[in-house]
Amino acid sequence: MEPNKGLVSALFLFFLLHATMASPTPKPHIKPRSPPHHPCRHLTFYFHDIIFNGKNSKNATAAIVGSPPWGNRTILAGQSHFGNLVVFDDPITLDNNLHSAPVGRAQGFYIYDRKDIFTAWLGFSFVFNSTQHRGSINFAGADPLMNKTRDISVIGGTGDFFMTRGVATLETDAFEGEVYFRLRVDIKLYECW
Amino acid sequence: MEPNKGLVSALFLFFLLHATMASPTPKPHIKPRSPPHHPCRHLTFYFHDIIFNGKNSKNATAAIVGSPPWGNRTILAGQSHFGNLVVFDDPITLDNNLHSAPVGRAQGFYIYDRKDIFTAWLGFSFVFNSTQHRGSINFAGADPLMNKTRDISVIGGTGDFFMTRGVATLETDAFEGEVYFRLRVDIKLYECW
Amino acid sequence: MEPNKGLVSALFLFFLLHATMASPTPKPHIKPRSPPHHPCRHLTFYFHDIIFNGKNSKNATAAIVGSPPWGNRTILAGQSHFGNLVVFDDPITLDNNLHSAPVGRAQGFYIYDRKDIFTAWLGFSFVFNSTQHRGSINFAGADPLMNKTRDISVIGGTGDFFMTRGVATLETDAFEGEVYFRLRVDIKLYECW
Repeated sequence: MEPNKGLVSALFLFFLLHATMASPTPKPHIKPRSPPHHPCRHLTFYFHDIIFNGKNSKNATAAIVGSPPWGNRTILAGQSHFGNLVVFDDPITLDNNLHSAPVGRAQGFYIYDRKDIFTAWLGFSFVFNSTQHRGSINFAGADPLMNKTRDISVIGGTGDFFMTRGVATLETDAFEGEVYFRLRVDIKLYECW
Repeated sequence: MEPNKGLVSALFLFFLLHATMASPTPKPHIKPRSPPHHPCRHLTFYFHDIIFNGKNSKNATAAIVGSPPWGNRTILAGQSHFGNLVVFDDPITLDNNLHSAPVGRAQGFYIYDRKDIFTAWLGFSFVFNSTQHRGSINFAGADPLMNKTRDISVIGGTGDFFMTRGVATLETDAFEGEVYFRLRVDIKLYECW
Repeated sequence: MEPNKGLVSALFLFFLLHATMASPTPKPHIKPRSPPHHPCRHLTFYFHDIIFNGKNSKNATAAIVGSPPWGNRTILAGQSHFGNLVVFDDPITLDNNLHSAPVGRAQGFYIYDRKDIFTAWLGFSFVFNSTQHRGSINFAGADPLMNKTRDISVIGGTGDFFMTRGVATLETDAFEGEVYFRLRVDIKLYECW
């Protein structure tokens, strides 16, 4: 019954290979097949935004550069700041202390886009150039900032973060009036190269 | 001739497996191997943009917040509105009726970027928070709006649209003067998690 | 010993298939497993930006449409142009000659986002509609423009560049005062469909 043995071997091989093909491979560049998804990289940072208000030019890290017809560029406009475009170059720190040594810069813009509640659209990058991280992570998405946490997209990266994609969870860690706020950013990368 | 039979089995197995490996797998997270590509998810929505013109502040869903040196923020500028930056928070509906119950909000900006014809650059999100959809879809791309249809990129998503990518086809469904326009958005997602 | 021969065939087949599965497949839609990564498509272009300065409206391809409180929209602001938002519709050429036949348009915006050195955040598209290329490539990222080369992300594409992703390296090829600059863009696509 040798042929049978050959067939058995072949069938065994078939199932072995099939199992190999079907099983979820843990390599990070292969997309996981079912939730919950596990990030291939997980990073947490804080960044600090100090909006120029006409008096704080020395410390300000952000400025209003667009406003609705009913606003100006020194004071955030009424109606939930709708229409205010803010450019920023904010220090990134590892903890929640504004005065900690920055590990990079958060650079880009946000634009308040709703009249009845505070919400903004963000386009920005984390730019790193230290011994720890080199390269950039690019972000875009809606930030309904009255929610405790908000998810935006990691749309790409360069250098140490070459081609990455993921989701970043923003959380307002502190704010003081309309001039200072601090965001905690929990970056979960699901595509790592 | 048993060995032959074994060999035949093995060869048959080889071709079987080879076929399995080469055939386009319908699983959405595996990229299809050859065009035409089939979306793993297909959604169609409408959104409605009413630009503030100085008189319609109650109904307006959008406002001019940047303009070229030769323009202002109440009337779209000449030269194809070149340089006008518009922020919006528009209702999304399932049909083409402005008064249908909104299923989400389209939030972000467009910026007219050409002097001789109407064309804009878009950065925005669809934000859903209903029983049907929860999460956001993020878009970016060029919108040469005199073309019947225009393709932009879906650059990411969160919640129900976690990590998605795709292409969205925009079509101007209606416009009334320079104050109201309605876009039909055909979203084809090719990466679904 | 025919069964053995069958087993040998099967084992040979196993290793053959295993090798096939484990080896990095050169197909562009499969992500490469280890650096260095090889682009599935590599393109180089130049684009030319002529900023409106109040006198060059005929030739200008860009205009300042947002500025910080201390600036205006005809002259780039002090403090490294921090807060200037510029919209552009620039010709793309294959060589570094402004007067070469354009093969497409670079359309979008940049926003200077740092007070102490020149750096900007970019959101734009390359829009092609020629016999050679049809479709668009969408870009986003930080541009620390005093660096010789800067990497930004290719976040998506349409048409001939359907669903693409990659990295683009920018290099300032020339500049004349604050009115004209020319960028060399080296586009390396790592996801091609």
